[in-house]
Formats: sequence, structure tokens, C-alpha cells
Amino acid sequence: MDPPDFRAAAHAVADLMADYLETVETRAVFPVIEPGSLAPLFPSTPPEGPEPLATILTDYQRLIEPNATHWQHPGFFAYFATTASGPGILGEMLTATLGQNPMLWRTSPIGTELEEVVVDWLRQALGLPESFDGLLTDTASTSSLIALGAARQAAGFDVAARGLTGRPDLPALRVYASTEAHSSIEKACMTLGLGRDALVRVPADARFQLQPDALEAAIAADRAAGHRAIAIVATVGTTSSTSVDPVAAIAEIAQREGLWLHVDSAYAGVVAMLPERRAPFAGWERADSIVVNPHKWLFTPLDASLLLTRRMTDLRDAFSLVPEYLRTPDRETPGRDYNEYTPQLGRRFRALKLWIQLRWFGLGGLRRRIDHHLGLAAEFARWVDDDPDWERLAPVPFSTVCFRWNPASGASESELDARNTAIMASVNRTGEVFLSHTRLDGRFTIRLAVGNLRTESRHVARAWELLRAAVRSDDA
Amino acid sequence: MDPPDFRAAAHAVADLMADYLETVETRAVFPVIEPGSLAPLFPSTPPEGPEPLATILTDYQRLIEPNATHWQHPGFFAYFATTASGPGILGEMLTATLGQNPMLWRTSPIGTELEEVVVDWLRQALGLPESFDGLLTDTASTSSLIALGAARQAAGFDVAARGLTGRPDLPALRVYASTEAHSSIEKACMTLGLGRDALVRVPADARFQLQPDALEAAIAADRAAGHRAIAIVATVGTTSSTSVDPVAAIAEIAQREGLWLHVDSAYAGVVAMLPERRAPFAGWERADSIVVNPHKWLFTPLDASLLLTRRMTDLRDAFSLVPEYLRTPDRETPGRDYNEYTPQLGRRFRALKLWIQLRWFGLGGLRRRIDHHLGLAAEFARWVDDDPDWERLAPVPFSTVCFRWNPASGASESELDARNTAIMASVNRTGEVFLSHTRLDGRFTIRLAVGNLRTESRHVARAWELLRAAVRSDDA
Repeated sequence: MDPPDFRAAAHAVADLMADYLETVETRAVFPVIEPGSLAPLFPSTPPEGPEPLATILTDYQRLIEPNATHWQHPGFFAYFATTASGPGILGEMLTATLGQNPMLWRTSPIGTELEEVVVDWLRQALGLPESFDGLLTDTASTSSLIALGAARQAAGFDVAARGLTGRPDLPALRVYASTEAHSSIEKACMTLGLGRDALVRVPADARFQLQPDALEAAIAADRAAGHRAIAIVATVGTTSSTSVDPVAAIAEIAQREGLWLHVDSAYAGVVAMLPERRAPFAGWERADSIVVNPHKWLFTPLDASLLLTRRMTDLRDAFSLVPEYLRTPDRETPGRDYNEYTPQLGRRFRALKLWIQLRWFGLGGLRRRIDHHLGLAAEFARWVDDDPDWERLAPVPFSTVCFRWNPASGASESELDARNTAIMASVNRTGEVFLSHTRLDGRFTIRLAVGNLRTESRHVARAWELLRAAVRSDDA
Repeated sequence: MDPPDFRAAAHAVADLMADYLETVETRAVFPVIEPGSLAPLFPSTPPEGPEPLATILTDYQRLIEPNATHWQHPGFFAYFATTASGPGILGEMLTATLGQNPMLWRTSPIGTELEEVVVDWLRQALGLPESFDGLLTDTASTSSLIALGAARQAAGFDVAARGLTGRPDLPALRVYASTEAHSSIEKACMTLGLGRDALVRVPADARFQLQPDALEAAIAADRAAGHRAIAIVATVGTTSSTSVDPVAAIAEIAQREGLWLHVDSAYAGVVAMLPERRAPFAGWERADSIVVNPHKWLFTPLDASLLLTRRMTDLRDAFSLVPEYLRTPDRETPGRDYNEYTPQLGRRFRALKLWIQLRWFGLGGLRRRIDHHLGLAAEFARWVDDDPDWERLAPVPFSTVCFRWNPASGASESELDARNTAIMASVNRTGEVFLSHTRLDGRFTIRLAVGNLRTESRHVARAWELLRAAVRSDDA
């Protein structure tokens, strides 16, 4: 694409982007589409000749935009929101243009050193001590995999070199997390060769928080069985109910047992940017590693996960490989080669969008928006609490409310499950809001997770209105 | 950022992007910077208040652009090129704006189904049979990790559930690849808990191609030792010399031994889009999995790696986990949830940029550009061959030439290593081109890898001129 053509095209696309964001609220958050209905809209064979950009962009508006789940919509309350903020999008535009690959210092000096700067800015914003260094990865799945990979290596069996097989002397390795911990922890165990069975699911209490006594008992039982504990994962803000594990008590146990403590705060971690809201994080400064995802509640376009750690050397021991073609004259100098800390070699320049965002919002601006979301969720929780026909199913430490319809007149558990499933489906069909669910204590639970940058009080109010209307309507 | 502000900002950034691409050739490909000199240019603490976008963009031009390694420069001949093409960048702009996360069909119907379409278009373009399905990942490292993870699972020990530890009955697992295979294969073995030692490095011949006899012998020896072979990795286009393993012969062995065959063609795979150049790929249609990176020689912005496989079910067995909060009413329907095939849960919408690119270039346009690069490398190789003071150190099956200065008057190996190191450094200091090196048979080898979309004959000619000038100058 010739430079003048690219300039014209970039301006045309800039308008498409602005149009989309300007009108996203007019769309159905989750459009009515059946699986398998979209692929047939595209030619089954690839195009042989070039097509004009105008045709492609027309198709983009016709085929792509209407068939997206609109994560940018202010009525997006499902899962945990990922908003791509304006300044974050500008950052992605520049990232794509520069084409950096900060796998080595040499392949992107600025990509490497700006990552150092931004990681340290985020560490300070979160109130963590200087002993934490870190890096940016694609997702929390990768961040936690790296943390547990480092824990596996730090266990002292030199797994990076010798592996886990053909070593009959090697005990079974064990990782501990609550029953509420995220699937990414279990998947990391699968990927790392520990297996799902290596993840000991420690019971949570009635507030869905890991029980330290049960953790200690599980570790002791495994030790008695000849197994070898290597890591504990504490979660601050679990995915189902956003519950908070007692990190300080867990840190005590980890220290006593000599275990790697990884804190998964992919969703809620950004709340630590508000000094007055740091109570749930007490003790996380004693963790060996912490994951917080800017691409969740820090309004950063996918992908950007922050992995902080006090043990960078252990990460490198677990993941470093330097073949000849990656050796550089700079290796005697302090230039950092981030690929030595990750399962992937190639890396995107993720620091740029974060640098732009942090400056555009300022920490104050980010705090204000997060605080606004906390307030919206608290308000919604009050509405649920105040209505005798609705029931809140978990505490609301952050911006997510777990609840269900449960009429004062009474209903069986199976009826409640069926009706709440129908209520959620009915609300989602309106296209005005998008909710997702979980199960807590076996009960079908509707989740309303506030986190979209565009969400205002009126959107949360509308969700509540739609939910109550769904109860009254026939189709729920 | 309000919609009108975003529109204005996106246009301002569009101009910055176009300006950069218009002038990238005037920059030093690899700027003269010392490691550690950039981080101090930024404030050591994060900004508290918001800053105007104009200030941030001015800093972008002042601090970011000049300190990048310019992968977009036509003189970029190092490693393997990654060009972000114009249409690819437009795709990234729209991807960032839509904020899709195609982890589930439900979280992005179009992200999921367009991925199916584009993966199949690429399969057809590469001339592979319909039995291949696949997905897009971030990097070849992840693609190969997934392939080997599936091979580990397919070996029959249910490693996903039971893991590799605490099972004294489990034999040592083994993976085979040539001495020239990429570090990502070794890293996948580390990550997967097989360990570096599990990767048996089969000797290559004088052309740096894996020797099938040696492979068979290695497998037999391991079997005799009680080890269990699980996979063979064949490379078409190795990283050092772009050598081509004899895939057909290796496929025979894999079939006979019942081993997973993974073909790493991350760099060279796109050459299979040229039907007349498919000879090096003969037999790859028998592979269980193949990786080809659009973000290398298909001009796609980082990140985009294509993993094709005939065994999607094995991938899913190795990586699927479906917690309650990811279960959806659609699970009874044919909607595909791509996260079940990957170590990561969150996923970028990578299909969009590929869809735009494939249509904008057309397969014909892509073939023409790849063919042009093949021609440029062949021309450079001829210059080296025709000059008595230079020596080519490997065949040139694709677009990469391995060579060194080796004067007709003779020189010792240690002198040659020192002089060629100095020659490369001297050429790189000019900023006009950027070369990297490897070692072949222990010799310091300069690599010229053609792959940037903007590279023309004059850039390759200039590289040759600079190399010869460096020999004459004092500083080399």
C-alpha cells in the first residue's frame, strides 16, 4: 500500500472507528445469531485477485460489526469487562505501525525499556514495594503459567533441564488454590505437566474465601503422603463471586512451608490503586508473584497482563534459552531480553498503549473511574438487598454483584434455577444489557459485573428494570 | 475520551502513522543507543494528573520513534522480517476498536467464525488438504507448544489430568528434532515439563538437514533404553540457515513409529503458496500439525501464527477446561470455543487483519511479493558466489543467504570469526541496513534475510556494497 494510499485509508478507517464507538450503544450488546450462521456468509475460497479497500470496508460494516459481541457497549455486564479506551486504541494504532518485537533489547530498545518504565509505574500505582520487578504478557493465563513455571523450577529439581519424566525419585508435585480459583490456574497445571490432579482445591468458606486451616491440613496430608508442595495461589477477586482469599494468612503459611505464593488479582488488582480500598490486598506484598490485568478493568485493549514478581531470576531460570542467533554484542550490558522470562519468543510492544493511557488518564483519572464503578455496583447490590423477591448470593467487595430472583412467596431450588436461567436469557435477548452467570453453592447465579468505561448509573438502573420486567413477562 | 475527541485524535494519529511509514527509510534501521539509556528519559513516577494528548504525541515522536529498531525499514535483513503491511495495520486499528475476545463463540461470534474462514483460506492457499483444521495463536512458540502438548496427551498417559509426576511407571518421554531446530521447540519442552533433556537433537547433514537414518537410530536407542518417543519436529526453513528437513522421509518414520509429526515452517511456510515452489514441502500434508507464521513473511502485524492440524480433538483433549462461568446455552450447538485448544483463555481477534490483508493483496499479490523476495535473495547469493573473497555457507532454498568474508588469500578460522563479526558490526553502524548472524559448523556466519515488504533490489545491492566497503575500511 503506497504511503499516500495508506494515509487516505487510515483516515477512512479512523472515521469507521469513531463511528462505531459513537453508536455502539445503539447496538444489541449480544446480537441474535445462531452458531454456524456467519461462516457461510463468506466465500469458501480465498480471493485470487486484489479487491478495492472500499469494498472490504463496506463488507466490514456489513458482516463484521453487526456480528460482534459488543464489549465496548455500556450495557456489557457479563464475565469481566474489557474496554478498549480511546487512548488505548491510539496506542494500538501506533504499536501496529511501529511493528516492534521486544523479544530482545536489540530488537526493540524502546519496547524493552518502556516496558521497564511502565511496569514500575504500575507497581507504584498499586502500592507495591520496589522489590517487585516484572513484565507484560498477553493474558493472565500466561502470567500465571509463568509464575507456576518459576515455582516448579524453584522447587529444586531443575525441571527446565531435566523435565518431570523418567525420574522415579521425583515426588508428585502439588499446587494449592481454593475451589473458587480461576480455570487458568488449572490450565497452567495441565500445560506445565503437573496435571489437573496436581491442583489441590482447598475448600472455601461461606463467603467463598479460601480457608487457611484447610490449606494447612491439605499441605500436611500431602506431605504425609510423600507429595511435594510447590506453590499456593491466592485470589483477590475470584471470577465467580469476586471473593477475596485471606492473603496475609496464606502468606504466613507459604513462608512457613517455603512455598511460592502467587496472587491472582487479574480482575480486581486495579482497585489497589485506590489507597483507601487496599484492605483486601493486605499481605500481597509478601507474594512471590502477582498478576493484574490492565486489559480488564484498566481499560486497555486486549492484550495486556501485568506479572509482578520479587523473583525475576527464578522466572529466567525456568524459561531462558539463548540460541546463537539470538546472542548479541549487547549481552554483556544491562539490556534486558524479555523473552528469557516467557514461554513465547516473539512479543508485542504492549508498553506503548499503557504509557499513553496512564498519561492521558493520569492515576487520578483512573482511580476516579474505578471508584465510580465500585459505587455503581454497591448501588445495584442495595437494590437487590432491598427487594424481598431478590437475593444476593455473595458479598460485593468490588464491582460485581451475584444475585438471583427468589420470591418472598418461596420456590424450590430447581424452580429457581430454571426461572433464573430464563430471566437471564430474556434480559440478554433485549440487547440492552448482557449478563453472564455462574453457580455458587450449586445455585444458578446471575452476575452483574461493572467495568465498562462507558457504563453510567442509567445503564445499571436499566439492567435492574429489565430483570424485574423479565420476572413479570411470560417468556421468563 | 469523548467521541468527537476520539475522532480528532484518531485522525491525528493516522497522520503520525502515515508520516512514519513514509519516512522510515530515512532512519537508521538500528539506532545507536546504549542499553539502559532510554528508561532514564522517562519520569520515574507515574503521572498523577491527566496530560493533553498533544503533549503525549509529541513525546511519542521525540522518545519512542527514534529509539525503535525499525522492523518496517526496507534495509531490515536481520532475523526474519516482520512487516506490518498497510492493510494489516488497518486491521489492527479495527481490532482494537471492536475489543473482541473470541475465547468463546458467545464472546465473539464473528471473531470465532471469521477465524474458521480465514484458517481455511490459508490452508487452501498453502495447498493442504481439507483434513487440516486449525486456529490462530500469538506466536510460533505457542503454536508448537500446543502441538507438542497435544502429542504429549495423545501418547496415552492422560497427562492433562494426571500430570507427569508421582507416576513412577511413566517412562521418560522424548521429542526429536534436528540440531538446527528452533529454540521454541526446546522451550516448549521446558514449559511442558518434558525438560530440555527430552529433546533429542538429531544430527544434521552438511546441508543442515535432519538425517533420517540418525533419527531412526535415535528412536531405536531410546526405545532400547526404555524411553517413550512421542513426537518428531521437522523444520522447513530453519532459523539459522533456512535448511529443509526431508519431511517425506520423516513422515514415513513418524507413521511407522506412531509418533506425532509437527512441521515447523513458521518462516518459510508461505512459500508453499507458490505451487511451483512446493518441492521443499513434499510430505508435510502427512504431518499431524504445521505452524506457519503470517506475522513473518505474510506481512501481518504481530501477532499472528497459524497452527494447522489434522487432530483438533487431540488439541482439545490436551487443553480443554470448561468451568461453570464459561458454560453457555450454545454448547449444544456447533459454535466453537477456541479457548479449549490453547493454553490461554483470552484471545485477540487476529482473523480480522488477515481477512483484510488476504482480500487487499489477493493470493496473487502475495505470491508476487514472496516470489520477488526469493529472486532478490538468489541475486545476492550469486554475488557472494561470484566473489572470490566471499563464501556462501549454506544453500539458499528461500530468501535467506548465509555467508562470510573469506579472502582468496586465506585466513585462519579465528581471524575469519573476528573479521566477520567486525564487518557485520560496521555495516550495522551505518544504519542503512541491519544484519544478524548465526554460527554454522562453528563458524561466525552473517545472515541476510529478505522479507520486508518495502525491500527492493537497490536495498539488497546496497547491503552488498556496504559489506565490501566494510572489508576495505579500517574499522572492520
